[in-house]
Formats: sequence, structure tokens, C-alpha cells
Amino acid sequence: MNRSGTLGVAVIGAGRMGADHVRRIDRVVSGARVAAVVDVDAERAEAVAAGVEGCASFTDPAAALAADGVDAVLVASPGPAHETVLLAALAHDLPVLCEKPLTPDAASALRILEAEQALGHRRVQVGFMRRYDAEYVRLKALLETGRLGRPLMLHNRHRNVASPPFFTSAMLISDSVAHEVDATRWLLGHEITAVTVLRPTASADAPDGLQDPQFVVLETDGGALSDVEIFVNCGFGYQVQAEVVCERGTARIGDGHALVTATAGRWGGTIAQDWTERFADAYDREVQAWVDATRRGEVTGPGTWDGYAAAAVCEAGVRALRDGGRVAVDLAERPAPYR
Amino acid sequence: MNRSGTLGVAVIGAGRMGADHVRRIDRVVSGARVAAVVDVDAERAEAVAAGVEGCASFTDPAAALAADGVDAVLVASPGPAHETVLLAALAHDLPVLCEKPLTPDAASALRILEAEQALGHRRVQVGFMRRYDAEYVRLKALLETGRLGRPLMLHNRHRNVASPPFFTSAMLISDSVAHEVDATRWLLGHEITAVTVLRPTASADAPDGLQDPQFVVLETDGGALSDVEIFVNCGFGYQVQAEVVCERGTARIGDGHALVTATAGRWGGTIAQDWTERFADAYDREVQAWVDATRRGEVTGPGTWDGYAAAAVCEAGVRALRDGGRVAVDLAERPAPYR
Amino acid sequence: MNRSGTLGVAVIGAGRMGADHVRRIDRVVSGARVAAVVDVDAERAEAVAAGVEGCASFTDPAAALAADGVDAVLVASPGPAHETVLLAALAHDLPVLCEKPLTPDAASALRILEAEQALGHRRVQVGFMRRYDAEYVRLKALLETGRLGRPLMLHNRHRNVASPPFFTSAMLISDSVAHEVDATRWLLGHEITAVTVLRPTASADAPDGLQDPQFVVLETDGGALSDVEIFVNCGFGYQVQAEVVCERGTARIGDGHALVTATAGRWGGTIAQDWTERFADAYDREVQAWVDATRRGEVTGPGTWDGYAAAAVCEAGVRALRDGGRVAVDLAERPAPYR
Amino acid sequence: MNRSGTLGVAVIGAGRMGADHVRRIDRVVSGARVAAVVDVDAERAEAVAAGVEGCASFTDPAAALAADGVDAVLVASPGPAHETVLLAALAHDLPVLCEKPLTPDAASALRILEAEQALGHRRVQVGFMRRYDAEYVRLKALLETGRLGRPLMLHNRHRNVASPPFFTSAMLISDSVAHEVDATRWLLGHEITAVTVLRPTASADAPDGLQDPQFVVLETDGGALSDVEIFVNCGFGYQVQAEVVCERGTARIGDGHALVTATAGRWGGTIAQDWTERFADAYDREVQAWVDATRRGEVTGPGTWDGYAAAAVCEAGVRALRDGGRVAVDLAERPAPYR
Repeated sequence: MNRSGTLGVAVIGAGRMGADHVRRIDRVVSGARVAAVVDVDAERAEAVAAGVEGCASFTDPAAALAADGVDAVLVASPGPAHETVLLAALAHDLPVLCEKPLTPDAASALRILEAEQALGHRRVQVGFMRRYDAEYVRLKALLETGRLGRPLMLHNRHRNVASPPFFTSAMLISDSVAHEVDATRWLLGHEITAVTVLRPTASADAPDGLQDPQFVVLETDGGALSDVEIFVNCGFGYQVQAEVVCERGTARIGDGHALVTATAGRWGGTIAQDWTERFADAYDREVQAWVDATRRGEVTGPGTWDGYAAAAVCEAGVRALRDGGRVAVDLAERPAPYR
Repeated sequence: MNRSGTLGVAVIGAGRMGADHVRRIDRVVSGARVAAVVDVDAERAEAVAAGVEGCASFTDPAAALAADGVDAVLVASPGPAHETVLLAALAHDLPVLCEKPLTPDAASALRILEAEQALGHRRVQVGFMRRYDAEYVRLKALLETGRLGRPLMLHNRHRNVASPPFFTSAMLISDSVAHEVDATRWLLGHEITAVTVLRPTASADAPDGLQDPQFVVLETDGGALSDVEIFVNCGFGYQVQAEVVCERGTARIGDGHALVTATAGRWGGTIAQDWTERFADAYDREVQAWVDATRRGEVTGPGTWDGYAAAAVCEAGVRALRDGGRVAVDLAERPAPYR
Repeated sequence: MNRSGTLGVAVIGAGRMGADHVRRIDRVVSGARVAAVVDVDAERAEAVAAGVEGCASFTDPAAALAADGVDAVLVASPGPAHETVLLAALAHDLPVLCEKPLTPDAASALRILEAEQALGHRRVQVGFMRRYDAEYVRLKALLETGRLGRPLMLHNRHRNVASPPFFTSAMLISDSVAHEVDATRWLLGHEITAVTVLRPTASADAPDGLQDPQFVVLETDGGALSDVEIFVNCGFGYQVQAEVVCERGTARIGDGHALVTATAGRWGGTIAQDWTERFADAYDREVQAWVDATRRGEVTGPGTWDGYAAAAVCEAGVRALRDGGRVAVDLAERPAPYR
Repeated sequence: MNRSGTLGVAVIGAGRMGADHVRRIDRVVSGARVAAVVDVDAERAEAVAAGVEGCASFTDPAAALAADGVDAVLVASPGPAHETVLLAALAHDLPVLCEKPLTPDAASALRILEAEQALGHRRVQVGFMRRYDAEYVRLKALLETGRLGRPLMLHNRHRNVASPPFFTSAMLISDSVAHEVDATRWLLGHEITAVTVLRPTASADAPDGLQDPQFVVLETDGGALSDVEIFVNCGFGYQVQAEVVCERGTARIGDGHALVTATAGRWGGTIAQDWTERFADAYDREVQAWVDATRRGEVTGPGTWDGYAAAAVCEAGVRALRDGGRVAVDLAERPAPYR
């Protein structure tokens, strides 16, 4: 960090997500500055860096990590590129905020976990930003009071207006349900032990051959069930809802009923159309929290273990989708800093 | 009543409301039958009576009241015709359910009150059917527990899609706000002592010259305020809402959120389009309650005093609309059976 | 029917449910009278019959069915007693309203179906009263418009405060989920083809050994999934909720948000404590509809086929609970009047 | 501003509000730093300044305004102290964010307005932070689409758990309703022309002699009515709600239904207990917006004219409370930069 204690961040990836994080660190978050922007596309990196005073651009992540003024790394490149950057950042012992997925599969995620273990302390935060959403935070806080008793079931709804052209049936699990996998682990404080995927008729509005929607049931080592309706071509909006059923009560979030109108024979309100609208505040809080913790020399959010566990559960889920039936999840031993 | 204890009812008025009450007594309500239908239009009376087994038709109310098998009277003719029929029914000492208004003005309402007093017992129930609406009933019950403390304010919303062609600015008060006048008196257990009418800009969608909406403030002898938004050309639906503000809490009814949909970028539901939809159950319960009480020889609902008080308050309201400022309400002494 | 067209009903069973139906027919429903009350406990039958003018009491159903003035039968005795009464009523060709379950198992239900088939017309309505609940009716009507596209998933919640002492894990399915089985079939217009039962940790508040809650997934021949959370010792209230997910939208009922209070740091409302509160209106409408249809010589509600199908699905569900995994449902051929 | 473009802010007042703004600028807001903290209590100023790197403390505002590194001023001292500081800041041509009220009365507010006019450009933003609340912003945006037609009425609810010991009946208007005065002006784009204050029975839970609640009706030059229930000892929570009634529909905010629980016979959620909970985000956004605009050399929020207009309306309101009846509001001419 420089003299005034401002955190210099190298942002890896200058696509939509990376550019948005650059804007966030530059204009919204307190205590950090964008020191470097990295993209394989040099022009794109330069264009994004140009908007920020004193920010350099790179095509090689390794050069950026070694650059002057770089104190920390935010990884927003595509998933398959994560492993290399993460290992390099860990080699420099630099704090990292890595957009999910940590890596695309459990084996590579395990390698990151082992590299971090070798350092002897946590360094990586994974971008499961729902943990920073105000409603999820209140739900978690309520569960922790124990007032409702133990959680027994968690019902999740995850709906998108439409899936991008490259989306596959497996990605409904590995890309979308991945969020509910983490939310389930975090809210309940359980690990997931088995996955079952049920396949209702595909919507006529889904692309040909895409199994959409899917209904995923997660079992946990705490004896709870977490079911997930994932429906990525619902057409009408972006909805993320969760209801926890405990021994003595239920709690529900995500209805989004802030502005209620009555007009033309109907009462109600609008539904967010994508995650930038629904989770804008969560991203702001996530990055601010990461900057604050990093400046204090701490790592506080979801870590490498969480990224690995999500990868392992999603792998089992994709197998369950393909083969039918129930697939058990086999996790490595949880290393010391995560116990 | 006939041998089996079934109440024979003469229905006065065979228009929309009268015909609906005939259907209700014939098909919905237990323990009563329509013995006679009366209308100045003989054909209309006959047509309605024809649908009911053993029902006679009349053009003269007096003849109907004297007819065999008539044990009770339901008055659903236009307001100006009420006085004559009510006095005749009281002369026969027959139980009456009289659609609101009792009569169109306070002076004539007082005459009915006096005629009933002469009998020495209550005979007339006035059709303030909101007292039978499940939500109003729950609100009243909650207030009576005293758990929220004394009521200090009551906020009412009363919106119609569009007013009929003959509607005048004064009728927003005498015809529409009349319901809130009774609801205020009943919910709070107070008499209304003064009325103020405020006039926002008229909606461009209201007929030319109609003062719509209006904002009416009622003061009560219990020190409470009851404000009423009356808006009879709101265009979007029929909404009746009430919120009571008490010393230690508030209670609100009328949101009508039973079926919630999410589609096409919006969540929400439909709004009733008229009172037949919103208050269908209330009318059913009102008439059943009147039949039940009458068969037991009792009068339990809103009575002549309530009809008179509403007429007096509405008269003051119409004056307040015309002249501006606050107009005091001057009530006769409350007679014995209503104390 | 007697001269005035009033339907004379024999009520079989004078327990809580039977006595409530006697009251309903006597005081709420139009066009019917209780002609006979039957119970194996003669005193109980007499006590209930005594409250109704002109009503006889019996201990033998056969005698009641043959009695003068009995035009129709309402069966409210325990499930194991249904088969005998139903066969007797069909032998007299009498219209029947039979509380669910039609009979306790698929084999006996099939015998009733065959006996009715032998008559050549429908005679039996089964008491799946949710089809008469105002919210379910609106949901069904909305689905039938097709505006939301085809239904793909149905999420059901069914929660009771506490289970009665005799309740077994199997009864969560055969007694409770039976309602969702019928609601799924009716709302979607599909038959159920397979059942899976998942078992979260039992609540500490459930009786020892009772698998409560359970999570049941029903598959339909229309390709839809219907999941049911059944939780009969949730402690906090009686909740029945349903959300249909269609290709272009969702629709949800059962939130029960009519009266909203704000007091002592919380906003919200009360939750019904049992079905008599939540479904009182549905029972009234069900019996009125049955009386109306019967007087017109018709059978309009859920019939013997629906009672049989529910029994068959529940049998499969109980097997799935016991053995784990997915159990297919094997239905007889659907007979003519139900096609 | 210093080389890196960071805005150096002098915070005037180190009480609860001032200290919270120091924390906000130091830890939450991007692009600004606290350069100076001022309080008449030297110890308090020092204590707050000590938590911020490179921050000086002062007891004399004039010294702070002249200090090195001070680019802008945030005024969070008590209202009576505002005039002197504001005039000094304007004399230095420094941008100001001034907590409401601008000054305690219309005459002094007019003096600030004139001093700013003499500069020839806007310099002062007034802390009406509801304009930065996400729900109010959505409501304003909806009104500006014109989809609901012209606004005719605005119903406001403003409830506090309990008033501080020094609160007077007049302060319900000048301190609390002041927010609705600004919200009405901003949402509707109208000036307020008259005020009426109605007095229901005071709550038994309000301090002796305090007229609480009050019901305030504001009339606007656009012909709209805005009514305000102000109830500062409601006991149960902090609620700020608004419903706009337009020609073709209504829109409502402030229900705060994000987390819904069902337990112990009730469904619902918690109510915020004070403004730090309800409007925390609004304060963050307000200060960030002020910093961003100031760094661009602009003034974008509510200005001196808005502070003056609110003071004039509140003065009329206090007179209406004291004397009864309707009091007209007499505004100075709106100066050039605010037209």
C-alpha cells in the first residue's frame, strides 16, 4: 500500500465484469485504487485503464502482479484462466478477490487450495457476492440467533430472463446453481453430501435441447434438504428467492416488493431484469469489505475452501443431471484455516 | 314464518340490487324464501318473481306487506322511495333489511327513527354491509381487544373505476363516503362531530365539472380523525382500504393480495373491478345474518340510528364541499334501544 | 326431494366433521335439510340429530339410506368405514358426498369405481374441498387462460401446528399430502406417474420416531414436477401455499395477508391455526355446490376416479417413504364418464 | 483538491451526526478525505479527528475553512449555528453539504439564499437525504414517466418510536414534517401554498402536553394535496411511507417487507427502529453524490432554495398548529439558478 494506505489493485480481465469492477474501485469503493488493468486484448485493457488516473495496462498477468503499486488482485477473467493467475498471485503472496468459479473443476480448485495451504494462511476470497446482499445477510443473522430452531429445509428459486447462446444444460448447475450451492453451505453451515437433479418438461421458450428448467435437491451433512428451482429462460425477470424452514418457523427473502403500484386493473411492481439490478449493492459491499479486510491484513469472506466445495458439488450435480438418480459428493479433508 | 320456520321475504325493488338479493335468498341463504317481489314496473317484478317457486309479484308495496307468507321485508328500491315503505313496514311491525341509504336526508331518517321508537323495539337493519366483510370484521375484533391501545386516526381509501353518468360531486359524499362514515362510527365506536372536505385538482379522466377526487376529514367525539380519499374515476379498479392508527400500533386491511403472479417483468395481482367482486361474500353474510337474527326474533346489525347518523354526517359533508371549511354535525339525542 | 325441492341428506358419522356438516346443511347451505344422522354411537347420533327439526337418528347406515325423506348421503365417518356405506349408497343409486379419503387403499377405491361404473353414471363426489377454495379457484382459472404458458413445476407447502397422537409417518402422505396429490392433478390436469420421498432430519418438536417433515416429489404424465413440503409439527400455524411455475410466469396463493398490523417492532399478521379457519369458506362452497348440482341431477365435483387416483398415488408414496428412491404409480384404465 | 483529486472535507460539528459523517467520508465514500473536524468542544473535535489519518481538529469554523487541504464543508452542527458557518463558507466560495434545516427560520434562510445569489452560482446542497433513498428515487422516476397521469394526492406516514425529551409540538412540524415538505415538493415538482394542521387526541404514550400525533395537509400550486400523519411516539418502530395517487394509478413505498418470517402464529417482519437503519444507504449515497458532483465542479442535489422553501412552509405549519385553520405560505421570488 502507498503512503496514504490506499490499496493498489490489479484487475485481471477487462470484459463486462472486469470493467464494472474497475469503475467500482475507482468511483464507489473507499480506500482502493486501480493500479493495473490486464487483458489478453491489449486494446481493451488500454481503453479501460485510460479512464483511471495513474492506471497501467498489461496483457500479461505476471507483469501486472509484479508491477509497482500493485498490492492486491481482483480476478474477473473467464473461469478457465483463473488457475494460472491464482497460482501466480499466491506465489507473490498477494491478496486476491476471485470472481466465481474459483476454477472450473474440483481437481484444479484443489490445487489452488493446496497452494494456499503451502503459504500457511488464507489469501483468496471467492466472489460469492450473495453473502453481501442485505437480504441474505439478514436471513443469515436470523438463523444464527437460533430463534427459529434448527434449519431443516431450504427452498431456492433462481430465475433468469434468458440464457446466453453458449449456455448448456450442465451450466445451469455449474454456473447458476453454483450460487445456491454456496448460499446453502453458508446459510446452514453444512457441507453438501449428495445431489439429485430432476428434469421437468423443458419450456418451449428455452433453446432447443436445453434442459430448462431443472429441479435440484441438495442433501447436507447436517441432515437438511435444499431444493433449487433453476429456470434460466423464464422470460419475465431475474428472481432469486430463498425460504428457510426451521423447526419453529420459516423465513423468506427475495420478493422484492419495495415499490407497489396499482394501475390498469393490477397491483404490484416490477421485477429486476438481471443481476446488475438485483445485486448491485451486494457487489459494492463485497468489494468494499474485501478492500477493508485486506487493508487490515485479514481475509474475511468466502475462501478457497468454499470455492473448492462449490466446484465439487457442481461436478456431482452435472453427473446427476447426465445419469439421473442421486450422486454423492466426495470432499477432500477440510484444511486447518477453514476449520 | 311458515311451519318449517322458513322466513318469507318480500323484496322491494327488482332492479340490479333487488334481483341480486332475490337470487341470494333463493339460492345462497339458508332459512329464507322469497315470498314476494315488488316493483313499480310490473313486468320487471314478474320476471324476477317467475324464477322463484311460489313467489308472487306486486307493484304496490302495501299489498306485498299484507300478503300471506310475508314475514319480513328487504328494501332495495331507490333511496327516495324508502321512507314510505319503511313506515308501512313499521306499521305492520315487520322486520326490515333496508339497503343504504336509510333515507336520502337526515330529516326523513329522523322520522323513521321516531316511528321505530313508537314501536318500542328495533325493527330495521340498514345495509351497511362492510360490517359483514371478513377483513373489516377482523379489524374490528382486533380493535376491541385493546391490544393496540386507543384508536387515534383512521385512513380510508375508496376508489371506483368510473362513476355512473348521473353522479354529482355531492354524491361522492352521500353515496360513496357514506360507507366510510358508517365504517368509522362502527370501527371506532365514536360519533362524528365535524366534517371538512378538501378539493385537489380534479382528474382529467373525471367527467367535466365533477369534483373527483375529494379528501374528506371526519372528527369524532372520541377525539379521533378519520380521513377518506374518495376517487370514483380512478380508472384502474375498485379499492376499499382502511388503516387504523392506535396508540401502540396500526392495522391495515383491503390490500387484496391473495393471488400473486410474476410475468412479463412484473409481480402482483388483479384488482377487483367493482363491489360485486370485492364484497360478494359480505352481502351473503349480511343477508344470512339478518335472516338468522330475524328467525330468532332479534335485530343485530346496524340499525335506524346508524342510518340516521350517516345521513346527518353526509348532509354536513355536502355542505362542507359546497362552502369550504369545517362543518359541525348536529345529531338528535340517541334513543334508548341504541344507547 | 320433497315438494319444495329441498334435498334431504343423511349424514353418516356424527363426530367433529359430521357434526360440522350437519350444522352447515342446517344453517348455512340453501336448499338442503338434514333428514338423518347416523353414528355407531347411538347417543352421539341422537344428540346431533336433536338440534335439527325433523331429523331422525340411526346407528345403521342401511336403515338411514332407506328412510323416508333421504335423497342424498354425506359420508363423514372414518375412512375404513367408507367402502360399505358407499356400496350401499350406490346400490340405492343415491348421490353421495364422501369426505376424503374415498377409501383407505387403491384396491378398495377401485371396487367403488367399478360399482359406480355398473350404474352407468357418476354418483359420488369426493371431499377434496380445496377445489372450492377461492384462491385455488382463481389459480386454476388463471392456468386455464393459458396466459402463463404450460405449467412446468408446482411448489406446495403444507404445514400443521401439530399432528394428532395417532399420526404415523405414512399418514403424512396418505392423510396430508393426499390433498396436494389431488390439487396437483386438478390444477395441472395431469395424472401422477411417480413419487419420490426425501427425508430431512426430523424436527425435535415432532413426536419421537415420526419422520416429520418430509419432502415429496410427484412426476406427472404431462412432464411437470410437483414438490410438496409436508411438515405437520411446524408449531407456528396452518399454512397451505402453492406456486405454479409456467413457461412465461408464476402464480402463487396461500400467503393469507388480509390484515396487516404494525406493533411492537414488527409488521405482519396472524396465521390460521387449523383448517377450520383456513378452509371454512371452502367447505361451505363445496357442500352448497354439491347440493345445487344434486338438485339439478348432476355430479360436478371431484369424483370416484379422483378418489381412486389419489389412493393409488398415496400408496406409491408410502412405499417410497419406506424404501427410498422413486416409485412408479400404476393406475387402472380411466373409465368412460371420467375421460 | 490535492494532486490525486481527493476532496478535502471540513466537517463542522462532532456530535452523533458529525461523527457519523466523518466515518462515512473516511471509510465508505470514494474520492474524499476528512481534512478537518470542528466542534466548540475541543476534546470532542480532537477525539473524532484522531481516528482519521492526517485530519486536524478545530474549535473555530473560520480557522477550519481557511486551513490547508480544505476543499469543501459538511455542516452537521445544530441548526441555530448554521447561518454563521454557511455565510463564511460562501465567503470562501466553498461547496457545502448542510444537514437540514438549512437554518431554523425563513428569514435567515433567505439571507443564505441572497448570499449565494451574490456569488452568481449554486454552492450549497441541503441534507434532504430522502432524495437519495432507493425507494423514493424509484417513485420519483415512475412519476416522471407520466404513465400514471398527473399526481393528485400524496399520502405520507412518518412514525418514530419515541421523541427525545426536548421535543415540542412545533418540532413535529419543523423537525419531522420538514422531510415530507421537501419530499412533496421534490416528488410532485410543486411549491406548497397552504398548510392545515389537525389535532387528534394525543396518545397516552406521548409526553404530557405534546400534541402527538398530528395530521398535516399541504396544498400545492399544482393543485395537489399532500397529507402527513406525523406520530413521533408510536412506540413500535420507525416508519416512513408514501403513496402517490395519480389520475390513472397509485404508487406506494416504505412497506419494508424484505425478510418475511412465519413463527409463533404470526407472519411478518421487523420494523426499523430508527433512521440510521432505514436510511443508512440514503446517507451513503447522498454524501457520495455530493463528493462526485463537487469533484466535477457541480451542485446537483437539493439547494438553498429548497432549504428556504422548507423553512417557510414549516413556519406556516407551526402557525397553523397554534392557531387552527388554514395558513397560506408566502414565498420570496425564486432566484435564477433555481428556475
